[in-house]
Amino acid sequence: MDTINVVALCGSLRQQSLNKKLLHQAIELAPKELSFRHGDLSELPLYNEDLQNAGFPVGVDRLHRLLISADAILIVTPEYNYSIPGVLKNAIDWLSRYQPHGFHNKPIAIMGASPGRMGTCRCQYHLRQVMVFLNAWVLNKPEIMISEAHQAFDPQGRLNDPKLVELVQSQMRSLKQMVHI
Amino acid sequence: MDTINVVALCGSLRQQSLNKKLLHQAIELAPKELSFRHGDLSELPLYNEDLQNAGFPVGVDRLHRLLISADAILIVTPEYNYSIPGVLKNAIDWLSRYQPHGFHNKPIAIMGASPGRMGTCRCQYHLRQVMVFLNAWVLNKPEIMISEAHQAFDPQGRLNDPKLVELVQSQMRSLKQMVHI
Amino acid sequence: MDTINVVALCGSLRQQSLNKKLLHQAIELAPKELSFRHGDLSELPLYNEDLQNAGFPVGVDRLHRLLISADAILIVTPEYNYSIPGVLKNAIDWLSRYQPHGFHNKPIAIMGASPGRMGTCRCQYHLRQVMVFLNAWVLNKPEIMISEAHQAFDPQGRLNDPKLVELVQSQMRSLKQMVHI
Amino acid sequence: MDTINVVALCGSLRQQSLNKKLLHQAIELAPKELSFRHGDLSELPLYNEDLQNAGFPVGVDRLHRLLISADAILIVTPEYNYSIPGVLKNAIDWLSRYQPHGFHNKPIAIMGASPGRMGTCRCQYHLRQVMVFLNAWVLNKPEIMISEAHQAFDPQGRLNDPKLVELVQSQMRSLKQMVHI
Repeated sequence: MDTINVVALCGSLRQQSLNKKLLHQAIELAPKELSFRHGDLSELPLYNEDLQNAGFPVGVDRLHRLLISADAILIVTPEYNYSIPGVLKNAIDWLSRYQPHGFHNKPIAIMGASPGRMGTCRCQYHLRQVMVFLNAWVLNKPEIMISEAHQAFDPQGRLNDPKLVELVQSQMRSLKQMVHI
Repeated sequence: MDTINVVALCGSLRQQSLNKKLLHQAIELAPKELSFRHGDLSELPLYNEDLQNAGFPVGVDRLHRLLISADAILIVTPEYNYSIPGVLKNAIDWLSRYQPHGFHNKPIAIMGASPGRMGTCRCQYHLRQVMVFLNAWVLNKPEIMISEAHQAFDPQGRLNDPKLVELVQSQMRSLKQMVHI
Repeated sequence: MDTINVVALCGSLRQQSLNKKLLHQAIELAPKELSFRHGDLSELPLYNEDLQNAGFPVGVDRLHRLLISADAILIVTPEYNYSIPGVLKNAIDWLSRYQPHGFHNKPIAIMGASPGRMGTCRCQYHLRQVMVFLNAWVLNKPEIMISEAHQAFDPQGRLNDPKLVELVQSQMRSLKQMVHI
Repeated sequence: MDTINVVALCGSLRQQSLNKKLLHQAIELAPKELSFRHGDLSELPLYNEDLQNAGFPVGVDRLHRLLISADAILIVTPEYNYSIPGVLKNAIDWLSRYQPHGFHNKPIAIMGASPGRMGTCRCQYHLRQVMVFLNAWVLNKPEIMISEAHQAFDPQGRLNDPKLVELVQSQMRSLKQMVHI
């Protein structure tokens, strides 16, 4: 049984983030072959090509090497202002500057949790468009868009709806299968 | 003749940015009533709600007050990875957290320059969707999407195509008119 | 008290359409100054420029004249396949070929009902992008995206959630105000 | 050498359509293993679930069977009003109602030609979003968005820019490879 290396990126930096909880659930519920490492988006400066020309910052380099070593990428992210969080997009803007970059030709799974009604839907379609440029392969199904997510977790941080548990399991299985294609 | 206060935001931080040049051209070509102030996106930390809860950072506060005092907003931005630059989106993510925030009910003009063929088109439609959430009013026409923009400026930073000059003038006139509605 | 002429377009052709019900509710709940006329999308051929060159079909011409006479337009539509129904888009494709066309510079309100969870959200953002081309002004707020809409109406076709009633009233009031700007 | 069956759909119905020319070029330039059949979108009524409930129309049924028998699908389409032509979307709306439908899990290639500057770019991203719902796999690269397409073909209907010829060849090769994954 070969290990599949998955890098997990979270679009929210706050400690009690619903999306961090969701990410932890994804890791817990994933098939055993999936081994996760967290990418840290918090230590990156704002993207500036002049900075890049002076040498990629250390935090960017570290994140890049992590992605390059990955077989697949999991992005768990809130939606901010009907689109991708700047934090996440800033990381992607840096990472896309490497040749080859770490998204190239990789399977990508996206999930998101939101206290609102649309479950990060608008963010996810923007992110899918970004992945066309990066030539990454985003899983079509299942889409995971958790609405009213402030009510979705129990005090231990577990998803309290068995259907959502199944959905997360199913997406992680699909990610595994996509790596094996 | 009343002055119209416009805050200009640029999605690129690099010194020799094509979009900074375009922004300067917009200022130069705009009707005299338009008075521009630059918003600085470079001094903002990555958005983090925990940070916000400890008090908005100084750079964010300054930018917010600038926007609040504006009659209209001009956004000149590159496209990164088929979407909005993280730098610009990060600023919007911070600024949207004020109540009321400085985009609310304001006229917005968007322009962009790109060395590629699509002239930041994909970025601009994502940005328009963001502005729906912020309840801002983005000018429909003219859209300004400058392709092959590395050839669009003369050594003094002026647009070398008279049609583009006219287009920029026309958009700035439309922005002025929209403020007066 | 001046009458405001609103043309209502529905993206679904079926008799028992949830969106037709929603449209009827919008008419019933709108301020008295709003006078509605239904645009019929069902009698249009598929768009073909060769047909157009032979003369606009009768049904298209009739719909065009209706739109031209309108002060505002209300679009109530389902989402099909994560986008705009072909039926509605086909009508827009025909109508956009007149100069001037009937959407130009008009206030537009969009609402939608869906049996699913996302309440036609994806359709509405595509439709907003279409309206940029047509230089129409889509209301930002309130957005009306009714999820699980098969449970949203009572046997008489009335919305059974008072909050949705208020939302529809609020959007119709906003449409009225936008006409008066 | 196994034959790969490709169904080709064209979003424009007019005789002298630039996109029909592009489609013919794609067929001519494709690897020999690709065998193309044209799907006819012109004989479909406007989608109406009541009609569907009375039995799928003959033209829809024929198109569905064609798609079901295909290994891959090529969509060549203009952009109308910054989105998918109603003609094409109407066909997709019908075809999506079969279970399973003919797009499911199929490789899809998209290309488009436009007399304007953006080369059907806005249409293509909307179409990609539709394909997420349909669980089809759209090729990321190369994207083919031909601007100023009224100047792109010689009198015999051949692309007159060797770079575009190569691009079309490259996309058709990629489609072939994707079928073989």
